[in-house]
Amino acid sequence: MSRVVKLAVIPGDGIGPEVVAEAEKVLDAVTADSDVTFDKTRFSLGAGRFLETGDTLTNEDLAAIAEHDAILLGAVGGKPGDPRLKDANIERGLLLKLRFALDHYVNLRPSRLYPGQSGPLAEPGDVDFVVVREGTEGPYVGNGGAIRRGTPQEIANEVSVNTAYGVERVVRYAFDLAERRRGRLTLVHKTNVLVNAGSLWQRIVDAVAQEHPEVAVDYLHVDAATIFLVTNPGRFDVIVTDNLFGDILTDLAGAVTGGIGLAASGNINPDGDFPSMFEPVHGSAPDIAGTQQADPTAAIGSVALLLDHLGLQDEAARVSRAIEDDIASRTGSGRTTAEIGDAITARLQA
Amino acid sequence: MSRVVKLAVIPGDGIGPEVVAEAEKVLDAVTADSDVTFDKTRFSLGAGRFLETGDTLTNEDLAAIAEHDAILLGAVGGKPGDPRLKDANIERGLLLKLRFALDHYVNLRPSRLYPGQSGPLAEPGDVDFVVVREGTEGPYVGNGGAIRRGTPQEIANEVSVNTAYGVERVVRYAFDLAERRRGRLTLVHKTNVLVNAGSLWQRIVDAVAQEHPEVAVDYLHVDAATIFLVTNPGRFDVIVTDNLFGDILTDLAGAVTGGIGLAASGNINPDGDFPSMFEPVHGSAPDIAGTQQADPTAAIGSVALLLDHLGLQDEAARVSRAIEDDIASRTGSGRTTAEIGDAITARLQA
Ligand SMILES: CC(C)[C@H](C(=O)O)[C@@H](O)C(=O)O
Ligand SMILES: CC(C)[C@H](C(=O)O)[C@@H](O)C(=O)O
Repeated sequence: MSRVVKLAVIPGDGIGPEVVAEAEKVLDAVTADSDVTFDKTRFSLGAGRFLETGDTLTNEDLAAIAEHDAILLGAVGGKPGDPRLKDANIERGLLLKLRFALDHYVNLRPSRLYPGQSGPLAEPGDVDFVVVREGTEGPYVGNGGAIRRGTPQEIANEVSVNTAYGVERVVRYAFDLAERRRGRLTLVHKTNVLVNAGSLWQRIVDAVAQEHPEVAVDYLHVDAATIFLVTNPGRFDVIVTDNLFGDILTDLAGAVTGGIGLAASGNINPDGDFPSMFEPVHGSAPDIAGTQQADPTAAIGSVALLLDHLGLQDEAARVSRAIEDDIASRTGSGRTTAEIGDAITARLQA
Repeated sequence: MSRVVKLAVIPGDGIGPEVVAEAEKVLDAVTADSDVTFDKTRFSLGAGRFLETGDTLTNEDLAAIAEHDAILLGAVGGKPGDPRLKDANIERGLLLKLRFALDHYVNLRPSRLYPGQSGPLAEPGDVDFVVVREGTEGPYVGNGGAIRRGTPQEIANEVSVNTAYGVERVVRYAFDLAERRRGRLTLVHKTNVLVNAGSLWQRIVDAVAQEHPEVAVDYLHVDAATIFLVTNPGRFDVIVTDNLFGDILTDLAGAVTGGIGLAASGNINPDGDFPSMFEPVHGSAPDIAGTQQADPTAAIGSVALLLDHLGLQDEAARVSRAIEDDIASRTGSGRTTAEIGDAITARLQA
């Protein structure tokens, strides 16, 4: 029986289209002989679309995207400081709007230092962990405001909103993941300062831990966690944390494990109420757009996460292995975006 | 004419008393032949005091401390998970209360990779920057709360409060510092998500930059800043940022420049309305307390910042040079806390 997966593709801005092209190449190749077909719809969204039409994400776009089974996104965002984008905020109006509207409460960001891969650390050790970043709450809710704007009396507030409902579901996901991995879970927060949100996170982790006696749980303040990420990243297995801390930790984690050119991510709605969205952690890098200098590995890794999410574990594993093999053979000499995509595609067959 | 400086000394908990003893040793030695005398008052504060008396920081303590010209603090905080400290929150009730009550709006945290010093990075390059962390606003204001606590309907909020008044004064300090240093200032925030607070910070930096045409200004999102801290820390001169981002970045910066055993800090009220407070960035490390394993260099470096703040630039420079010389000669073989203090004291004479 053949299965059709409706995939929304959002190439986006800058290097987005280039890396998505390679991700699609790999997706097409790995599913060529299988009984699953990807029925793709392309959405033109991002700074480019905004400059053309003034739209960031219309209700029609959102409704159409929501009809799909999954989303593959490249990167969105224009040139920093582009005056025409001054009031756009593509990040909030498009990327975060998708994550929130589609209830992507798990932002899954694996970090692995592949054999053969080097990063900035002198002695990184074995690094293989996953950050489970909450995706729909915290300081990202857009619940802030300012009074007396532009005057010496201006006050600008940002509210971090955290709910038992929201924290519990992502914590449960993280424990389940830790159980399938090396059985270690680290809560990262700042409970000694953000006492209300911190206490909620800590109590929920403590409660869910009772149901998972086989998972070893510890806690780190976010500042201390950054230290361990550079001095002993091998200590981590699953990190569960809030939206903002997860944002910070995963960029650092990407850097530590060879650069965000390799860092894949999934914005996941585990309940299947909405399509999940897969995207590289990196941005649109307008400075190198169109030059074929971008590394598509993060986008291709996001395809592996997409396949895994869709229950296509074999295909996901083949893509992951192809990435791993390619990385192991890298010599540092500059290949183009397409050459890396081609090389990874070629290794799929093996 | 001889000058008397009234110094409040808060040794604190864990390794605090050990590192403060060495810091005092250096302070005494460097001022032995000068016409400045330090008149010290010792305050017993921290988890130890709380366990004895139930007090965290009484109004009397605070008033007495405020009578001094400056404060030297070791570290405060008990054993993590100590059930007797469950409701204490020494951090909020003591450390942050001091910073807020004494209007320490500049939290100054220099990071330098000294010649001879190695850190976790394979190729760190020349690292010498200062983080100017705002100290009295942001998510640290303690302006949060929870409803329906302990139920599945719990909502826990944390409010980040940012004012033009508070941001402008710390930004001005950072620009003045950049001008005396290498003329480079980086604002770190998350303006694309925390749009209200971010816009306030960005507008104030832009405005103050007009008065400092010789300072080169750039901006990084906090997540990107962590990447640069491990891939190119040499790019930074002065970083100005909010209370929470500054907390995170300075722990990472400490790790990158050889460990938080070396990271000194000053909680400064530049206007002189209240005594400024100097403390190592590290915590009380109860696990190694009393074993003479702690590195007192961060506490001694805080003495250099203290001397500089008091206008004793020569003495400050002598302490800094002694630290630098000592670090350059380190072989990695374990010296005790007191031996390191003695060695740095001995180098003062040189
Ligand atoms: C672009 C930005 C809004 C986004 C975030 O902060 O989540 C990005 O940094 C990320 O990590 O995906
Ligand atoms: C102990 C804690 C409250 C404090 C902070 O978050 O400021 C510490 O981490 C620091 O950096 O001085």
